[in-house]
Amino acid sequence: MTTFEYDDDTAVARQQDGTYRGEVTDRWGAIGGTVNGGYLLGLCTRALQHTLDRPDPLVVSAYFLRPGRLGPAAVRTDVVRTGRRVSTAQARLVQGDKEVLRVLAGFGDLSTHQGRTRVDSKPPELPVPDDCVDVTGGRSLPGLSIVDRLECRARSVPGWVQGSPSGDMTAEFWMQFRDGREIDVLAVPSLVDCAAPVVLEDGAMGSSTIELTVHVRARPRPGWLACRVSTSNVMDGLHEEDFDMWDSDGTLVAQSRQLAMVF
Amino acid sequence: MTTFEYDDDTAVARQQDGTYRGEVTDRWGAIGGTVNGGYLLGLCTRALQHTLDRPDPLVVSAYFLRPGRLGPAAVRTDVVRTGRRVSTAQARLVQGDKEVLRVLAGFGDLSTHQGRTRVDSKPPELPVPDDCVDVTGGRSLPGLSIVDRLECRARSVPGWVQGSPSGDMTAEFWMQFRDGREIDVLAVPSLVDCAAPVVLEDGAMGSSTIELTVHVRARPRPGWLACRVSTSNVMDGLHEEDFDMWDSDGTLVAQSRQLAMVF
Repeated sequence: MTTFEYDDDTAVARQQDGTYRGEVTDRWGAIGGTVNGGYLLGLCTRALQHTLDRPDPLVVSAYFLRPGRLGPAAVRTDVVRTGRRVSTAQARLVQGDKEVLRVLAGFGDLSTHQGRTRVDSKPPELPVPDDCVDVTGGRSLPGLSIVDRLECRARSVPGWVQGSPSGDMTAEFWMQFRDGREIDVLAVPSLVDCAAPVVLEDGAMGSSTIELTVHVRARPRPGWLACRVSTSNVMDGLHEEDFDMWDSDGTLVAQSRQLAMVF
Repeated sequence: MTTFEYDDDTAVARQQDGTYRGEVTDRWGAIGGTVNGGYLLGLCTRALQHTLDRPDPLVVSAYFLRPGRLGPAAVRTDVVRTGRRVSTAQARLVQGDKEVLRVLAGFGDLSTHQGRTRVDSKPPELPVPDDCVDVTGGRSLPGLSIVDRLECRARSVPGWVQGSPSGDMTAEFWMQFRDGREIDVLAVPSLVDCAAPVVLEDGAMGSSTIELTVHVRARPRPGWLACRVSTSNVMDGLHEEDFDMWDSDGTLVAQSRQLAMVF
């Protein structure tokens, strides 16, 4: 049986009531040599799914407290409330005696279609992935291992990658796992924090997430996901970043927003 | 000394380490006879400010678990991490033995202006408040006491108030407390959940918040606040609602988003 990188690296083993053990690997390295926060959130989302025994994260909020480190991690979960449509739980990702990440999440079942539907948001109008280019421009950076896990394809290589930030704090691109794993609801909360922050186009050197909340709105169909990322307001070094995601059928899969600090 | 309704009704008294006692009053009744969730969040925000001893909520995430009830409430707070720029804590609002609301929040100091600033969002272009009308259209509804606390003024009375929903799920209006209390950072996390949901313009009867996250971006100047609310996507009865707020100088004060369920 084939195993996929994302599944291997977010695997968690139940230890005792509500506590899970996982391992932070070096395959999700982000800008600045840090472990990508979305990947750390993936460990928590996985533990929460086990704990709540409901298939779909509907809403996940993560507060990033400290940088993650390579090596063992414990995820401590607590059920807050089991509801009819939404069940809520909390997770704390702990390394050594330090809490790295605290998460609140509501899980449910996105296959139960009930109630009103009206979707006004439109997916990005991108050329098909084959007519787009890899956003890394074929370059690799030491420690930036996440680009070996995920492929993002856009109309053109972003300005900041080429050394000339465009000033445009929006980006549109396709995303998929490089190893062929399909993006499912469980991976979505990770992936909305896995692309380069668009403040890099405004001359920032990087950005560090304080809080991220994602609403997962639908189970994605297999295939590339179309993403739109934008930052409108940087104030005293703090900025929001919105990240919306559509599947290959044009269904809105997720909307996320984070508050982050530029550096 | 004059006291204001919002301050009286969100007052919390420290009981023992990290626990506060407050009272849920009948002055913040919302559509459907429920207690407004923003008001309940105000009790938590106030307790968190005491606990963290930092002036400004930077980001607050609230998970609404059950309807609040009139009468006593306990707010149990725990400090998660005291950081250099951001300190993080959790609050649980409990009534009887039931948890009603769980909150994570990061507090800091918005008077410390440091780092990059670039604001692309624009406030709504509204006529001055004197040239706008009260959105209630002068009507009052039994139990809907919150409209006696807060005044919202728009270009015209919303369609749903007049019995003919417009289909336009955006709204722009001015907001202030009716008793003259200025809106400050502490009130902001309440107020982004205090207006009528814009899904009412799509024919919904109401909406119940599952999760709300607000980024407070600046301390507001005194005076009316300009608000823009919008919902773009209702899917299977779940919808997001974005609520942005600017002060009288045109400074972006807050951006919030919630996931809610229509009824």
